[in-house]
Amino acid sequence: MNPDRLDPTHDPALRSWVSSAHVPGCDFPIQNLPFGRFRPFGSSEAFRIGVAIGDQVLDLRATGLIGDEDMNALMGHTREARQRLRAAISAGLAQGSDRQAAWSKALLPQSAVELTVPCRIGDYTDFYTGIHHARTVGSLFRPDAPLLPNYQWVPIGYHGRASSIGISGQRFKRPQGQTKAADAKEPAFGPSKRLDYELELGFLVGQGNALGQPISIEQAEAHLFGVTLLNDWSARDIQAWEYQPLGPFLSKNFATTLSPWIVTMEALAPFRAPFERPAGDPQPLPYLDAPSNRAAGALDIILEVLLQTAKMREAGEAPVRLTRVNVRDAAYWTAAQLVTHHTVNGCNLQPGDLLGSGTLSGPRPDEAGSLLELTLGGKQPIELPNGERRSFLEDGDTLILRGFCEREGAVRIGLGEVSGTVEPAQGG
Amino acid sequence: MNPDRLDPTHDPALRSWVSSAHVPGCDFPIQNLPFGRFRPFGSSEAFRIGVAIGDQVLDLRATGLIGDEDMNALMGHTREARQRLRAAISAGLAQGSDRQAAWSKALLPQSAVELTVPCRIGDYTDFYTGIHHARTVGSLFRPDAPLLPNYQWVPIGYHGRASSIGISGQRFKRPQGQTKAADAKEPAFGPSKRLDYELELGFLVGQGNALGQPISIEQAEAHLFGVTLLNDWSARDIQAWEYQPLGPFLSKNFATTLSPWIVTMEALAPFRAPFERPAGDPQPLPYLDAPSNRAAGALDIILEVLLQTAKMREAGEAPVRLTRVNVRDAAYWTAAQLVTHHTVNGCNLQPGDLLGSGTLSGPRPDEAGSLLELTLGGKQPIELPNGERRSFLEDGDTLILRGFCEREGAVRIGLGEVSGTVEPAQGG
Repeated sequence: MNPDRLDPTHDPALRSWVSSAHVPGCDFPIQNLPFGRFRPFGSSEAFRIGVAIGDQVLDLRATGLIGDEDMNALMGHTREARQRLRAAISAGLAQGSDRQAAWSKALLPQSAVELTVPCRIGDYTDFYTGIHHARTVGSLFRPDAPLLPNYQWVPIGYHGRASSIGISGQRFKRPQGQTKAADAKEPAFGPSKRLDYELELGFLVGQGNALGQPISIEQAEAHLFGVTLLNDWSARDIQAWEYQPLGPFLSKNFATTLSPWIVTMEALAPFRAPFERPAGDPQPLPYLDAPSNRAAGALDIILEVLLQTAKMREAGEAPVRLTRVNVRDAAYWTAAQLVTHHTVNGCNLQPGDLLGSGTLSGPRPDEAGSLLELTLGGKQPIELPNGERRSFLEDGDTLILRGFCEREGAVRIGLGEVSGTVEPAQGG
Repeated sequence: MNPDRLDPTHDPALRSWVSSAHVPGCDFPIQNLPFGRFRPFGSSEAFRIGVAIGDQVLDLRATGLIGDEDMNALMGHTREARQRLRAAISAGLAQGSDRQAAWSKALLPQSAVELTVPCRIGDYTDFYTGIHHARTVGSLFRPDAPLLPNYQWVPIGYHGRASSIGISGQRFKRPQGQTKAADAKEPAFGPSKRLDYELELGFLVGQGNALGQPISIEQAEAHLFGVTLLNDWSARDIQAWEYQPLGPFLSKNFATTLSPWIVTMEALAPFRAPFERPAGDPQPLPYLDAPSNRAAGALDIILEVLLQTAKMREAGEAPVRLTRVNVRDAAYWTAAQLVTHHTVNGCNLQPGDLLGSGTLSGPRPDEAGSLLELTLGGKQPIELPNGERRSFLEDGDTLILRGFCEREGAVRIGLGEVSGTVEPAQGG
């Protein structure tokens, strides 16, 4: 924990006049205050900026705290401005606030609104910070060199596709493409047979930087607005055939699904942890190293993956949990290191840009963030409680990611969830 | 040539009342009519849609042919709507038009306007269609496997960075980053020592597709709006260390430079050519093959690369040509194949998306589209007329790409040019 980042908005004793915010297990108590974009169900209005509180959404513009700026403009403010806005929202929603009467009219039930991608995502970069994932997957793709020589030096990343990003509830057709069996002379075309998910966090950029002006490691956190859950759907058979030499492309860009609420870096302040490299590992180069990053660079967030097959849904059976992992145990690079590395060559980040963490797998085999890892490349299918087996995802499967933070002395906050459903391939 | 695509706007006898359009060697005769975005120099107005004619810009909205739509909206129209717009612009600019008096007031000299990136680029994908480039570079990075087994089957591509795209005149600082010498134990940090350009075409998407709805090879060309020149600046030493396993990242995303005028697919109609694979090569899979693509999939465009060093500039010496290549001889995949491949998995393209061709090198060593190739990985520096030598780009170098189409029976049209200049590294 990093107490110098804490302020009255984190006070565990703070309570809201929105009573649903304090139901046990609620993701959105007054200590959280995540941002999203909403409009009333069935409306064709422009999406508005909202803050989740309990089972309600606060229409931020209706509170008078912001003007007609859009989410990206709001995200582009300085960290100090964001902290002031957070303090004002917290004060207005707190028990005893004189805003209660006015702001009650700015609330809508979450069940009555449609949400959308929380901001305009200009560029999406996906990193590869999960070292246990990199090692396990590397051993499947390259048995001779599971962890490449650059991994412990370079926060490996690549550009992803922004147009196909959706939010929780996204449904997509199983992708088709070229694949080549190891013993085949030529590739074949058809629906992917090795469709997978990837458990990730998405970091959303706040204030950007000008082209040619790197962001130092000390300043990097100030440029992050917050986090979402991210499912980086992956077609492993398409990936294996296409990825050399320029990286994954059609194996990834058919869909990427985010949770709709951005939990701010400010809300995560009580859940920071020291960041240390395992003994014997090389230390990061100086541009990626700073005392602040060592002291509190890590995030203490629990992530879970759940699966509900079509058969389970029809039988009324709840989703079954496949994985539970703490981000602290999975990520080899911090969010600040990603920002600094991304800009060290002068590349410019813009408000709303998305940085994926890469698949977050813990050190234990049952903490893996993808089926590729859980089933050892499809060789050991997992058995579900209803007797079904899965090597990879099947049509009708719904995959759910959840995330939350819990710690002694702090109020639990949640990242909500992101679900997505696989539909049969085009013409399939 | 594909005569069924020709219409009265291509008539070689057609002349404009804008007299500069018919100066010999002019890139923008009335048969061209490329689109860009401009505003008067020194103004802070919003950029407007313009059409280049001779040395003038036609303010399209001032002609009354369009309303207040932006460039991306205009690009998203159907091909038929675009053809109607082109016909109307051509008729109004033609000698004898009754619009001459009114439209004369809608003209501004190109020397009096500021241009910008011609549209809002949501996503940028860079392909790798230059087979001679792929083979030469492959032999430098992987002597044992220059052309990977997927190359002749998969139109290899990867996602690029949209935020750092600029237009002709872009200046950028030499990127810094991690590099590792082959004999070094650990990587080092510093300015790139192997900075290079890449000669490419950029295809701009017109009408998009919905997520999950692939674009067939027969329909693909209708979804392209036009082309620009593209310089995909590359830091080879950063690339060599970072690119495994997810592809190039910081080695590319510090800057990408486009020519400011989009030459439409309609303007290129007289310069189409049959597209045939060399005898003995595998045929493309059926989803990438169509009679229309074989009949006229290729583009007959001449590209040139020129270099002007700081010393040459100071001495008043003109840029020197490094390369001249015809796209026909360089590209292993057609633009239609890129569109179809990109969407076959359901990925959605949007108006204004950019598809880079990848480096276009001809079969002859002196037709190479990068210094990496011309100097064999820096081993054989090129000598310039003033006695300077270059293995890679040095600070102060200005690199210029030009493109044009010439053919018996057609009026020459040009793509204009794109220049960019390397500044010293941050703090360097």
